[in-house]
Amino acid sequence: MSVQVGVIMGSQSDWETMKHACNVLDELSIPYEKKVVSAHRTPDLMFDYAEHAAERGLKVIIAGAGGAAHLPGMVAAKTLVPVIGVPVKSSTLNGLDSLLSIVQMPGGIPVATVAIGTAGATNAGLLAGQILGAFDAEVQARVQARRDAIREQVLESSDSL
Amino acid sequence: MSVQVGVIMGSQSDWETMKHACNVLDELSIPYEKKVVSAHRTPDLMFDYAEHAAERGLKVIIAGAGGAAHLPGMVAAKTLVPVIGVPVKSSTLNGLDSLLSIVQMPGGIPVATVAIGTAGATNAGLLAGQILGAFDAEVQARVQARRDAIREQVLESSDSL
Amino acid sequence: MSVQVGVIMGSQSDWETMKHACNVLDELSIPYEKKVVSAHRTPDLMFDYAEHAAERGLKVIIAGAGGAAHLPGMVAAKTLVPVIGVPVKSSTLNGLDSLLSIVQMPGGIPVATVAIGTAGATNAGLLAGQILGAFDAEVQARVQARRDAIREQVLESSDSL
Amino acid sequence: MSVQVGVIMGSQSDWETMKHACNVLDELSIPYEKKVVSAHRTPDLMFDYAEHAAERGLKVIIAGAGGAAHLPGMVAAKTLVPVIGVPVKSSTLNGLDSLLSIVQMPGGIPVATVAIGTAGATNAGLLAGQILGAFDAEVQARVQARRDAIREQVLESSDSL
Amino acid sequence: MSVQVGVIMGSQSDWETMKHACNVLDELSIPYEKKVVSAHRTPDLMFDYAEHAAERGLKVIIAGAGGAAHLPGMVAAKTLVPVIGVPVKSSTLNGLDSLLSIVQMPGGIPVATVAIGTAGATNAGLLAGQILGAFDAEVQARVQARRDAIREQVLESSDSL
Amino acid sequence: MSVQVGVIMGSQSDWETMKHACNVLDELSIPYEKKVVSAHRTPDLMFDYAEHAAERGLKVIIAGAGGAAHLPGMVAAKTLVPVIGVPVKSSTLNGLDSLLSIVQMPGGIPVATVAIGTAGATNAGLLAGQILGAFDAEVQARVQARRDAIREQVLESSDSL
Amino acid sequence: MSVQVGVIMGSQSDWETMKHACNVLDELSIPYEKKVVSAHRTPDLMFDYAEHAAERGLKVIIAGAGGAAHLPGMVAAKTLVPVIGVPVKSSTLNGLDSLLSIVQMPGGIPVATVAIGTAGATNAGLLAGQILGAFDAEVQARVQARRDAIREQVLESSDSL
Amino acid sequence: MSVQVGVIMGSQSDWETMKHACNVLDELSIPYEKKVVSAHRTPDLMFDYAEHAAERGLKVIIAGAGGAAHLPGMVAAKTLVPVIGVPVKSSTLNGLDSLLSIVQMPGGIPVATVAIGTAGATNAGLLAGQILGAFDAEVQARVQARRDAIREQVLESSDSL
Repeated sequence: MSVQVGVIMGSQSDWETMKHACNVLDELSIPYEKKVVSAHRTPDLMFDYAEHAAERGLKVIIAGAGGAAHLPGMVAAKTLVPVIGVPVKSSTLNGLDSLLSIVQMPGGIPVATVAIGTAGATNAGLLAGQILGAFDAEVQARVQARRDAIREQVLESSDSL
Repeated sequence: MSVQVGVIMGSQSDWETMKHACNVLDELSIPYEKKVVSAHRTPDLMFDYAEHAAERGLKVIIAGAGGAAHLPGMVAAKTLVPVIGVPVKSSTLNGLDSLLSIVQMPGGIPVATVAIGTAGATNAGLLAGQILGAFDAEVQARVQARRDAIREQVLESSDSL
Repeated sequence: MSVQVGVIMGSQSDWETMKHACNVLDELSIPYEKKVVSAHRTPDLMFDYAEHAAERGLKVIIAGAGGAAHLPGMVAAKTLVPVIGVPVKSSTLNGLDSLLSIVQMPGGIPVATVAIGTAGATNAGLLAGQILGAFDAEVQARVQARRDAIREQVLESSDSL
Repeated sequence: MSVQVGVIMGSQSDWETMKHACNVLDELSIPYEKKVVSAHRTPDLMFDYAEHAAERGLKVIIAGAGGAAHLPGMVAAKTLVPVIGVPVKSSTLNGLDSLLSIVQMPGGIPVATVAIGTAGATNAGLLAGQILGAFDAEVQARVQARRDAIREQVLESSDSL
Repeated sequence: MSVQVGVIMGSQSDWETMKHACNVLDELSIPYEKKVVSAHRTPDLMFDYAEHAAERGLKVIIAGAGGAAHLPGMVAAKTLVPVIGVPVKSSTLNGLDSLLSIVQMPGGIPVATVAIGTAGATNAGLLAGQILGAFDAEVQARVQARRDAIREQVLESSDSL
Repeated sequence: MSVQVGVIMGSQSDWETMKHACNVLDELSIPYEKKVVSAHRTPDLMFDYAEHAAERGLKVIIAGAGGAAHLPGMVAAKTLVPVIGVPVKSSTLNGLDSLLSIVQMPGGIPVATVAIGTAGATNAGLLAGQILGAFDAEVQARVQARRDAIREQVLESSDSL
Repeated sequence: MSVQVGVIMGSQSDWETMKHACNVLDELSIPYEKKVVSAHRTPDLMFDYAEHAAERGLKVIIAGAGGAAHLPGMVAAKTLVPVIGVPVKSSTLNGLDSLLSIVQMPGGIPVATVAIGTAGATNAGLLAGQILGAFDAEVQARVQARRDAIREQVLESSDSL
Repeated sequence: MSVQVGVIMGSQSDWETMKHACNVLDELSIPYEKKVVSAHRTPDLMFDYAEHAAERGLKVIIAGAGGAAHLPGMVAAKTLVPVIGVPVKSSTLNGLDSLLSIVQMPGGIPVATVAIGTAGATNAGLLAGQILGAFDAEVQARVQARRDAIREQVLESSDSL
């Protein structure tokens, strides 16, 4: 099966966060690719990536970046493939700058923003799964199974308090 | 064609914001329904709505709320249909509370969060269009046409400076 | 004597914070139960817990959660038992997100919010004691005794500066 | 029936906010008194009020203040009667200062904090009702009736979108 | 004399702010051009503008944008012409989002950021004047004259208190 | 010479911060006393301390506290002796809560607020010195000497870059 | 009697705020002068003013400024006369920028900071009165009388709720 | 070749941040000087430095400071040489205070502000390079070469994910 999700990030150092998105996609058996694409240091690569995303069959792009995080919004400006933005926790402002830079998009170009940091990266993988799953019963079943498993973990965790 | 997007909001007063999502869905000819569903004042209705969303054929839910905005996250907890959260601008903290209450979801249950206020509502409609469009070429073409029109408006607007 | 206070938390990891509430309830000899109940991962359990809280004799519920902290508000939406919300310190925004998600409830459904983190958890236990104590002279006497002891500690602590 | 709730505020100008608490107490037929008590301008009155609150039969105190809002916390330091703090929206920082000054109490002296502004004042009245209602079935029934009425309003409001 | 400064903005509505930069450039007799260039709605135009800025003789670019303000940083990524970023005051977060989106650039691509709103736009014009003036004594003299005039105004303004 | 400055703090744990104020007072040979006085845990002691400060000859009070920091403002409400407030860095919100709780006093009761943490405590000692120095040439000379010494340190520090 | 307090402000537009300081000084019959002194537009005047403040007999300087508010701190750097800083409410960030620019002084040079806006300006006047009053019984008596009057107003204001 | 850039900082402890600016200037072979100049502790040195900057041939000044960071703005007030301000990360508020103190300059005196911390310092060096490069093709070529090298690094870094 061809690659369905592109996971990109602004810097190699974002991998510690973004690998959580990839882990979820692995769990859900969704084919994906991962790549460093920097809005500011490789702008032409970024535009090229975004422009060809749809024709290459990508159904969702997950883009993580920190600080003045322009990657998700700029990719979104160049493609109609839904873009999920992951605000990476920044060293100075704890990711509040990343969050606002990603979520406060002007009317016209949406970015589906998730939480700051690893929880957000995990959820980016799940959101990609749910979007694909809305049109693919098998994927949906795997997402459901993951939810069921997590629910069981919570139910059991009370015993260890 | 059956309803594909559910637009819900925590209070009637959110309509001034959320109608921008509906306007976009109208422009894109995407069938939708709209409803007041309050997480806090009609919790059972909320759970019921979320539980039956998938079987009723909804492909996307757009949920707007302000302040301690629990509606998008709680609906997301009860369905696998992708939920787009719109932080409504609140009277005291300008929607920063709404934004954080919606976007900072724990790993496991994603909400696709957009910008605070009307820009976010507009983008929620477009994001729904792009998600549907990833699997429906006609919808995608209409989203593309809207983007093209907006680009033309920007290009022309320089003349009026 | 039957359980009077329910201490619930969104995740096992919240226990490090929430145990401070339990410690106070132990000190005050108030019977309580403790449980992991996740708004997002076990929503049905949460609703069930809230719905039966009053008939099970609970007089106060203490609910702790972090990030997009929906547990206290959603429990409050499903019961008339007073709910005390404890904002657990989050890894990215230091609990400001937890605080705003809990305290900024819309008119109609109150949550009695305390401070972020362990100080808040301690005070949640004390607030429960004071609420019960307003109708139970013995509990009130124990709360008073604890206050007196703390006052003495402060008075003595000047000597060690 | 004797006064059960004391509603105090730091300044006459807080009345626009605090009257919403009184309106709810009126709706619930809970006897209350209202008074301007300033932590900074009438500190002795404040201590006197707090010290005699319990013996005068008050079961709950609702205290509203803005800016460096010390009233709720200082009253709480002088009585075991549960104190509900209402952060009044301030002219410069929108009530964020009021909120933090009230909610961030150190371990030992709790204040049950509600939302900034009128929603918080409304909820302070309801929280007082729920605390009293936990020990008084008639009050509880009136709180329940109010919730039911609000739920109906929400259900009907969808029609007007 | 050829155009030396390019003043661009993300939306026609930014003109109310950005005209203050143009006014200063007029005062300083510095030739400039003004244009609406949207990072999100006209990304190709933006790249094209940035790529040809140096060869067209621009010595400074002033770029204003609001919200998730990506224009200054993305233009800076595509040219070595110094870019001055003006955070336009946004309707929801007062321009804090604009500021952080512009100033928090990662190491490698600088944006010279000025204050939020009209004061920032005025200063963008002056900063352009000072950069040009560092290599052009006539421009520098005009900047100096403007400073002298403002100093006189301040000195005289005490009389009207 | 009798005690001229009272250094008080809300908790023994504030000593790590407040000792910097005492160090400066030692350097300036200004007689002072130090004491733990908690607004919330020893309110009567606090009032008593403030009420007798003037008659005991105190010319300045330095009060440090963290979180919902009510000590400086409440002491100020009970005395005309100038009160310098030191916001102690809090464990959750980095002292922003302490700062706002201290500085945002309503019109009528001033607190002279300094920076969060140790820099603020150092400056509280210096400010006390400058207030006393305005009426005591010897103290002023010692403050001046300290400034001169610090200036020299800065001038020399360039060599070590 | 010679001028004892210098009231300076960074811009004529700060007068609306700073006049509240002057009003209090008038009430307290403390001789003062008022002047526009801009840190950025008249830096030499500012240094000159600060350098001669002590020898001209000033006992306190009140300095108000907004935004990147450097006036209070820079004046403080050039004199030992105690400087009270008033953060003027700014048009974009509501005075949070003014507050942090004034209060967060490094160890070595204190500024006595008061609340943002008019409440702060009023308190600056009162703080000046209390500093002078600590060494002048007549001034202190007038400050006390003002406090007494305000207390009476508060006590009477309850009747009008 | 004479010194073209002056790198100054408010304290020796800022060197850990500011050395990143110097490293870039070294890479670009731009002659510079470095110096500790404190706005608050050596105000006269600061004014002297700024006043003679232009005649000494400086084309750009890079000024770093933390907390109530007045150095960049005050230097800018005393010279027409473009000033780049680097907000140093502060120990309490993570540099948000530094950022606002530097960037929120009033209309009339611009400071070219870069990101908080080391990324900002690096970019200050690059911005200086780009300003000089706009009038010096050799410098521009070196800035371009550095960008090219960084782009290559990013392109290669994908392989190591």
